Amino acid sequence: MNFKLVLRITGFTLFIEAAAMLVPMGVALGHGESPLPFLSSILIILAAACVPVFLLKPKHQDFFAREGFFTVGLIWVLFGAFGALPFWFSGQFGPYIDCFFETISGFTTTGATILTAIEGLPMGLLFWRSFTHWLGGMGVLILTAALLPFLGISSNFLIRAESPGPVKSKLVPRASQSSKILYSIYLALTVLEALLLRVAGMNWYDAVTHAMSTAGTGGFSGRNASVGAFGSPAIEIIITVFMLLFSVNFTVYFLILTGRAKQALKSDELRFFLIMVAVSVAAIAWNIRDVYATVGDCVRYAAFQVSSVVSTTGFSSANYDLWPEFSKMLLVVLTFIGACAGSTGGGIKCSRILILIRSAHREVRSIIHPRSVSVVRLDGAPLSERTLHTTQCYFLINLFLVFGMAVVVGLDNFSFTTTLTAVITCISNVGPGLDMVGPAGNFAAFSVLSKLVLSFAMILGRLEMYPVLVLFSGSAWKRS
Amino acid sequence: MNFKLVLRITGFTLFIEAAAMLVPMGVALGHGESPLPFLSSILIILAAACVPVFLLKPKHQDFFAREGFFTVGLIWVLFGAFGALPFWFSGQFGPYIDCFFETISGFTTTGATILTAIEGLPMGLLFWRSFTHWLGGMGVLILTAALLPFLGISSNFLIRAESPGPVKSKLVPRASQSSKILYSIYLALTVLEALLLRVAGMNWYDAVTHAMSTAGTGGFSGRNASVGAFGSPAIEIIITVFMLLFSVNFTVYFLILTGRAKQALKSDELRFFLIMVAVSVAAIAWNIRDVYATVGDCVRYAAFQVSSVVSTTGFSSANYDLWPEFSKMLLVVLTFIGACAGSTGGGIKCSRILILIRSAHREVRSIIHPRSVSVVRLDGAPLSERTLHTTQCYFLINLFLVFGMAVVVGLDNFSFTTTLTAVITCISNVGPGLDMVGPAGNFAAFSVLSKLVLSFAMILGRLEMYPVLVLFSGSAWKRS
Repeated sequence: MNFKLVLRITGFTLFIEAAAMLVPMGVALGHGESPLPFLSSILIILAAACVPVFLLKPKHQDFFAREGFFTVGLIWVLFGAFGALPFWFSGQFGPYIDCFFETISGFTTTGATILTAIEGLPMGLLFWRSFTHWLGGMGVLILTAALLPFLGISSNFLIRAESPGPVKSKLVPRASQSSKILYSIYLALTVLEALLLRVAGMNWYDAVTHAMSTAGTGGFSGRNASVGAFGSPAIEIIITVFMLLFSVNFTVYFLILTGRAKQALKSDELRFFLIMVAVSVAAIAWNIRDVYATVGDCVRYAAFQVSSVVSTTGFSSANYDLWPEFSKMLLVVLTFIGACAGSTGGGIKCSRILILIRSAHREVRSIIHPRSVSVVRLDGAPLSERTLHTTQCYFLINLFLVFGMAVVVGLDNFSFTTTLTAVITCISNVGPGLDMVGPAGNFAAFSVLSKLVLSFAMILGRLEMYPVLVLFSGSAWKRS
Repeated sequence: MNFKLVLRITGFTLFIEAAAMLVPMGVALGHGESPLPFLSSILIILAAACVPVFLLKPKHQDFFAREGFFTVGLIWVLFGAFGALPFWFSGQFGPYIDCFFETISGFTTTGATILTAIEGLPMGLLFWRSFTHWLGGMGVLILTAALLPFLGISSNFLIRAESPGPVKSKLVPRASQSSKILYSIYLALTVLEALLLRVAGMNWYDAVTHAMSTAGTGGFSGRNASVGAFGSPAIEIIITVFMLLFSVNFTVYFLILTGRAKQALKSDELRFFLIMVAVSVAAIAWNIRDVYATVGDCVRYAAFQVSSVVSTTGFSSANYDLWPEFSKMLLVVLTFIGACAGSTGGGIKCSRILILIRSAHREVRSIIHPRSVSVVRLDGAPLSERTLHTTQCYFLINLFLVFGMAVVVGLDNFSFTTTLTAVITCISNVGPGLDMVGPAGNFAAFSVLSKLVLSFAMILGRLEMYPVLVLFSGSAWKRS
């Protein structure tokens, strides 16, 4: 393991985090709040980052898969550890573990919060909270990858560890160019959403923070009642649409922009995603018909919540923990499934679910026709048995980890529903679960152990597990 | 599809069910109860069975995989449908759907009950309830398979549809001989348990019914408080030991009987199972240390409940729904895992879990060493990629079905915990879940739809899914 180089790269990315903190510090100053929590954090981060960047001299530039995975894991943990400092220094976010949990929840775009009362907290800090979503959304690492060529290092391994989805489709050959295109689309959609929210009646601060939380499919809101606090159907509809837009594989936008809309809309995953959303909205709107006055209200609330969960954002426009069980169970299932690959959303991803359904179907058919040979296809192209195997392993590792972590979190002795949905919502990067961690609840009451386990779950989910698991595999540490 | 032959075989097996009913009828007579519910049921079954057996003349004896799967599925449904008649005729088991649910629960060795008050019900009927467990335990079909050669039909396809576990190891070349050996071990262990329970203080009736329920890893008890009602540590310990004995692959006993004990104990699955049980007992005993007075009590209650759940029996010696959440979550995880392959137990099976863990581990390693080729082994022998694929598909189909059925059962609007654990406990053939379906609860309050879905889950679990799923695959119905 080329530790010196790993630490050097990590140091560079910490400069980015320090620079990012200037933005919320500006917001704090603009609102007449103390800039000290940010200023002291920035100085500490700079001091910590300078050591590896200026003092370590890597003997060689070898950078292989394990270095890539290790770097990615380390950067996410350190971003959480250092990003938590402003919250901690403010003294208003509780003990350090809570600040760490909140920051990991931010960068992983989960949106699970330890805050029991959000309104009244300093605006600079709440801006930082939403800003971590926005930074995390496209992956701090894609940004880093765009810078890496300057360091003379191949960034392929970093991209491989970071980019979501089972099947990679590079937009353009060079990673740095890909990430520029993705970031432009990301930025444009965020700005558009903020403008629309402003027009719909939000003030600029709320519009920008909610747009950033939507873009990262995070879900932090400056209100206890989340988006529901604004009581505006227009705002809910805008956010619903943008949550769905950010759940779609960004390649679709790239293809549309380059005049290949037809090809974009042929995507099996996109169709699966849209049908799943439509069916879920219809089913939940029907199931909550006695909860709300009009059909329109039922559809609006159902559409908002389904979009929030499949996009893995985690906003709420109503306390769906009070909805009938059918709706809640369906939302939990959607929490597992999540968004499309190549989006900012989390979860197992629609493409994986589609591949799993098709391979399961082939398996059942093969019992009847044992000698028939058939391939599983996605978008018309046959998938290798290797891809099927990896996807199946992804699913089973995800479930094993969910059950394993639920047993550990069970030590806190909260309800079965709280325990299980807390783990599921964290590993899927959604945010709220049911019962104590429902849309009206929070994660404050968990023990330090559970908060660490759930933080780990969020990082696992965000990095699509393998890069993190590799670090726990003995063979990653052997010299090859 | 050779329907005539399928119906003819099904008819023959119904004769067995009618004959089996003579036993509880005898018990009813012996206790001065009316034999009428049984007598009328027997007559109806005989009438229904005679039609295909004597009137249908199959044109040919072709019997392929799809005929096998269809026969198996049909037999289980009809055994439930006809076996429910005595309960229904008695008028003491509620509407027909409840009787059907109870009978399917019996034959599939699940042990989930719709009875709200068990004590005081006719002893003949309660005997029939436990007897269905015993008949279902080794598979009515293995018994049938032993008779099939008389019909001049190859029974391989039936055996394949029926025998549990991912890897088949035939004991002896001929199926009819295998089933004779298995049945002898099964009978001997049942008789031994009944004797021991009698010695420990149970009356003969309780001893025999509880021994039959243990042998089938079913879990029906004649008491509302299950085994806990007897308040006898000796009885609990005996049942604990026998639940574990019936969770072990029966091949182990065959090997021990033929002087190959060393080979038997080398089984990876057996080791995994024993370690899992030991660790779980220790963890739960520690977790319930404040619930019971002495360490001995904690260990005894923990050992009983862990054995009950991993064996998928479902007896209880205490209301573990009141235990801390950690213990409950661990029991739910064990509910998924279940017993060893080739036992009378249900669940995903330890061998499958072991294969999945190993293939997941290989997957993680392959990320670090992409060019290394390694195989997954069980008992030292390499497993084919095909076996891995089938096992992974088994797991994912199981989970997909659990979540899908939980959404449907959610329509009944019982709690999240009730809904989810009801489905899990039924598909794993355990019996009790948590909350409303906990050890002190029952399934009576569910709607007809949910009872049908849960009955389907029990059959799916018992037949290890594929035979049932094949029936829903369009290609099963096409003429080849």
